[in-house]
Amino acid sequence: MGTQFWNDDVAQLLRVREGFELRGIDPAATPGTAATKKAGQTELAASAQEFRELQEQLFAQSRVGARERVLVVLQAMDAAGKGGIVNHVFSQIEPYGLSLAAFKAPTETERAHDFLWRIEPRVPEPGVIGVFDRSHYEDVLIQRVREFAPPAEIERRYGAIADFEQRLADDGVRIVKIMLHVSPEEQAERLADRLADPAKHWKYNPGDVDERVLWDEYMSAFQIAIDRTHAAHAPWYVVPANAKWYARAAVQRIVISELAALQPAWPAADFDVVEEQARLEATRGLTWPS
Amino acid sequence: MGTQFWNDDVAQLLRVREGFELRGIDPAATPGTAATKKAGQTELAASAQEFRELQEQLFAQSRVGARERVLVVLQAMDAAGKGGIVNHVFSQIEPYGLSLAAFKAPTETERAHDFLWRIEPRVPEPGVIGVFDRSHYEDVLIQRVREFAPPAEIERRYGAIADFEQRLADDGVRIVKIMLHVSPEEQAERLADRLADPAKHWKYNPGDVDERVLWDEYMSAFQIAIDRTHAAHAPWYVVPANAKWYARAAVQRIVISELAALQPAWPAADFDVVEEQARLEATRGLTWPS
Repeated sequence: MGTQFWNDDVAQLLRVREGFELRGIDPAATPGTAATKKAGQTELAASAQEFRELQEQLFAQSRVGARERVLVVLQAMDAAGKGGIVNHVFSQIEPYGLSLAAFKAPTETERAHDFLWRIEPRVPEPGVIGVFDRSHYEDVLIQRVREFAPPAEIERRYGAIADFEQRLADDGVRIVKIMLHVSPEEQAERLADRLADPAKHWKYNPGDVDERVLWDEYMSAFQIAIDRTHAAHAPWYVVPANAKWYARAAVQRIVISELAALQPAWPAADFDVVEEQARLEATRGLTWPS
Repeated sequence: MGTQFWNDDVAQLLRVREGFELRGIDPAATPGTAATKKAGQTELAASAQEFRELQEQLFAQSRVGARERVLVVLQAMDAAGKGGIVNHVFSQIEPYGLSLAAFKAPTETERAHDFLWRIEPRVPEPGVIGVFDRSHYEDVLIQRVREFAPPAEIERRYGAIADFEQRLADDGVRIVKIMLHVSPEEQAERLADRLADPAKHWKYNPGDVDERVLWDEYMSAFQIAIDRTHAAHAPWYVVPANAKWYARAAVQRIVISELAALQPAWPAADFDVVEEQARLEATRGLTWPS
């Protein structure tokens, strides 16, 4: 488990279980640790090497045919810290092993297709950790709350998502779905910070306030989406996110534990090592300009 | 220029000029600095913040319509350190601002199209730093050396590349082409290291030795490619790369100087800040569960 930062298995603590109630989760809590901000930042850095090595092994074994990969789905209210998770947790692994897809409001072309049409091409290749910043869950969250699609269509999507994720899992994709859970009070602080700093204005969207006032409706939509799509092969984790240091360390540990469960290992050479060493040695005299 | 690590403008020193001769470049040299390994690693970390802020500004201004972006083309003999540049230099910026494309030997489908067909879709979007690990230059390097295409076709490609890069430049793409220049002796050391370590076997390809013995031919092909495609809007830089710490710090500084030349800046808000602050304040009472 890295260091003594964690006093319990945080991945198990935050994983959704039978009877899960979002209402019961305190966004300000820090389950699994008694530590504070400074220690959280230290933990994040201290576990980077473990994270990197697992990712590199996953990548290496894909070069000789392994199909395993990880898809991390990040969903949250605005300003809950998705960007910070990407920039502080997923930036720790090699860029070769990371595939990031940030989904915006669908374009006209995308809306002309089934909602999963734009998702499928962004599923990570074998060996890669894919991160979705927003995802197909937008199609049952904002689309439900805003009634962008009729109720029967929203209903259809839960089943379509379950089938889609089952198919990915059958092809070697480990799906890890994470809701970053902030309180409306904390969100207000963060939006106010963005408005107060000209270097952050570009991150602010007036629409954020319009969605914010529908907090109740969004939380209901999250509860339903979690109930309908949580599965052993595609679990949901709800991560209290009022404390950024906690959310980052927790997501890092959840992803490490999911990676470790895949048991990636350095692949055996698919060539004769001794023979290659001899071939290389025979060229040692090479110089340039010759 | 960050710190006293550089005693001269390294980007200017390494940039190809009229009459450039690859033969005259010592892969073991460290132009622009009298420092050594430890200081190089310190410099790399010390300049990360400068690099990140420029990249973030480039990204931010694209959100309000700016077209500028950067395309870094990395070309080199095997084991020259392309991967290390990606993992140690480009990993410093936010994943949102980085688009990495690693080009392998073309597939059958790719070979059925013009050589630029697979390149075009990987050109970075506005605001993003694209990195090509290998590129369309393979089509005039290995393809020339190995005679995978007839001489007239190779000849055609130099002009096609020049036209392609001119078009990208006209659309706001700053093209930065970097050759990492190692000696054959240093390459042998690195390939031997890969063969000696089971955790690195997956990085070794028996074909590397077959290409290695054609060093002379490769260097001639690089010289011709540089002569034919170096341009003010798409310059080549040749970076001595026997010392990894030097190559990494030099590439970081080259990219920072190219980014700085674009003069990215935080974009002005496209909304009324005071009005948004008032709208947000009006929702401060929001709680959940309500």
